[in-house]
Amino acid sequence: MLPLLTRLDHVGIACRDLDAAIGRYQATFGLEVVSLEVNEEQGVREAMLGVGVVGGGLRPGYVQLLEPLGPDTPVGRFLARRGEGLHHVGYGVADVREALAAIGGRGVRLLDERPRHGSMGASIAFLHPADLGGVLTELVQPADPALAPRRRPQDRPSGPLGDLPGRIG
Amino acid sequence: MLPLLTRLDHVGIACRDLDAAIGRYQATFGLEVVSLEVNEEQGVREAMLGVGVVGGGLRPGYVQLLEPLGPDTPVGRFLARRGEGLHHVGYGVADVREALAAIGGRGVRLLDERPRHGSMGASIAFLHPADLGGVLTELVQPADPALAPRRRPQDRPSGPLGDLPGRIG
Repeated sequence: MLPLLTRLDHVGIACRDLDAAIGRYQATFGLEVVSLEVNEEQGVREAMLGVGVVGGGLRPGYVQLLEPLGPDTPVGRFLARRGEGLHHVGYGVADVREALAAIGGRGVRLLDERPRHGSMGASIAFLHPADLGGVLTELVQPADPALAPRRRPQDRPSGPLGDLPGRIG
Repeated sequence: MLPLLTRLDHVGIACRDLDAAIGRYQATFGLEVVSLEVNEEQGVREAMLGVGVVGGGLRPGYVQLLEPLGPDTPVGRFLARRGEGLHHVGYGVADVREALAAIGGRGVRLLDERPRHGSMGASIAFLHPADLGGVLTELVQPADPALAPRRRPQDRPSGPLGDLPGRIG
């Protein structure tokens, strides 16, 4: 079976105070914020902090810090139920639509039947944690085509998000 | 501040049945097991599954699946309290002793004052989740010196584990 996952992309960490969490990760590890966004669709304010120095334009790994926009959001409910901590893991894929089709065909429930917009212009989709040992799992197709070398030219969208809803925040 | 973390190394996932979990990750994503060990000290049977095809001898990312050896182990207690799911995140460091000294000096409590032996001969240490937003955090210095280029020759242990307790399993 051809491996679907190209890399360990990020860990998503739920926090109550994004600025405090950023400060903690900067002070402890020297990580730097490379993206700070509001994603209204997902109900979060979020920061991506790069882990590791990567040459040649390659995408590093990320710590993604997530603060809910309100209590009635997925991350807000997670915090109420579990408290702060690890929320999900994100893996890189070359083509998120192809990956969704393949994984759905293997009996794993998809939380997103079609890609949504994620951090830094990526196309993303979530898989159901109940079919993956309790782990909320995200597939990430980075916006930069150079980082998704297996995507065929005819599949490339006209813009960084293709036919996805416009980027928010 | 010099970044301490060289890479996103792995996500640790607690499971009740290691063989079932391995089967699920193989069937869903096509991941392959690169290491299967028992770590008596940590009370786990564990598998490392490589994520991503990496050239040039570089270390890929890993999914680490952890089955407790009994209920009265850290992972056994985690499963009783939280159920299956994300347990910890591991970051690469060039020198785990130097990283522990630096991080301890920044006020983060260390669960391990000295390195312990981890998967595939790595030297590892855990940081207290209460000081990192509820995230149990592991530092990983891989056994292969080629993967830890900043380690000085005079620090290199005579074997893959140096003066750590002998590898188990």
